[in-house]
Amino acid sequence: MTEPANHAAPSERTRVRRIPTNAHYDTATLHAIIDDAYLCHIAFADEKGAHCIPTACWREGNHLYIHGSNGSRMLKRLTESETCVTITHLDGLVMARSAFNHSMNYRSAMIYGRFEVVADEAERRSTMAAFMEKLVPGRQAEIRPGSDKEFAATTVMRIALGEAACKVRSGPPEDDEEDMNWPVWAGVLPFERVAMKPVVDPQCTQPAPAYVVSWQKW
Amino acid sequence: MTEPANHAAPSERTRVRRIPTNAHYDTATLHAIIDDAYLCHIAFADEKGAHCIPTACWREGNHLYIHGSNGSRMLKRLTESETCVTITHLDGLVMARSAFNHSMNYRSAMIYGRFEVVADEAERRSTMAAFMEKLVPGRQAEIRPGSDKEFAATTVMRIALGEAACKVRSGPPEDDEEDMNWPVWAGVLPFERVAMKPVVDPQCTQPAPAYVVSWQKW
Repeated sequence: MTEPANHAAPSERTRVRRIPTNAHYDTATLHAIIDDAYLCHIAFADEKGAHCIPTACWREGNHLYIHGSNGSRMLKRLTESETCVTITHLDGLVMARSAFNHSMNYRSAMIYGRFEVVADEAERRSTMAAFMEKLVPGRQAEIRPGSDKEFAATTVMRIALGEAACKVRSGPPEDDEEDMNWPVWAGVLPFERVAMKPVVDPQCTQPAPAYVVSWQKW
Repeated sequence: MTEPANHAAPSERTRVRRIPTNAHYDTATLHAIIDDAYLCHIAFADEKGAHCIPTACWREGNHLYIHGSNGSRMLKRLTESETCVTITHLDGLVMARSAFNHSMNYRSAMIYGRFEVVADEAERRSTMAAFMEKLVPGRQAEIRPGSDKEFAATTVMRIALGEAACKVRSGPPEDDEEDMNWPVWAGVLPFERVAMKPVVDPQCTQPAPAYVVSWQKW
């Protein structure tokens, strides 16, 4: 079912306590969970309490990147305090024989630390290009590039992936021995994020490139 | 594209500042976003900083419910401080003509407040049944019900939906007039969460009920 934890937690606050056998602390698992995501949820606290904000993200090397307007409240707060970034993929509903052994299959990653502003102009531009390349490989060369004014109005931030923990559940339900003969179907109802038919902008007069034509999964 | 905000924000901390035309403060939008979700992300802060934890959720009336083991660190913390619960559905990648007008279509809900423990035993049992009914309508009657011991080991909590804000983006990209003739395809690459083929537990000898047979969307 689940592989054993393959490394120790990098810190006390990343040590998984609930079902620690589902914990993963290796880089490959962490990178795979991030790279399969288009957005993350970021928790931070200010004088109004805790906030949980969804935002687009991407990875380069051992950092997770986000961006936003210079005026963003969240971006300002993120350099001032520790934060927790979480990504969760729901992979299925786990149907057990007993009510309390029902579960969900998922892959989640939590990253702790502090964001830093990417100040170097060349690095800002190159990582924004990497973001576009993640969204749609090949599109960067076709679009109207960002202007100096647009780049100047945008803040790019990153957080190191050194203090992170992943938790993964996969596979069938796990019922107690005495429930195994309960007369009910047991198994997993899987979910997938599926690419649907592209919707052309009504004002678009350009032909669809290969990546648009091939977008629809079925 | 986007409807105008239909009500005022219920509080200062739920007032959407970034692209306020995408804000929705009405109950119907909030309920629809919650009811389409199986999990939420909960932000709270303790002496170690901010945390962002994914957990299963469901709605009854004007409350969002979660549950967990009595020993859960998060559940203990949640009665002690204000929290923010966020649900986000990613509906598509928005391909504009200019780099900086690229966006994502999404539906998100943020709920502020404080969780309370559901102490009444009848209410605990009835809302856990509602949770199962949400996961798989009809299954509650087939499974081995929760025992007194299992219920005693479980904490059920809820948060009122009175202080919440939704943000929704839908529709095509919005480019500036001077970019409209840039020679690139523009439109939306949609995503959907799709129900895939059920995976029977290898140890299951029971036939699949109608809701399992009908699970696979295509």
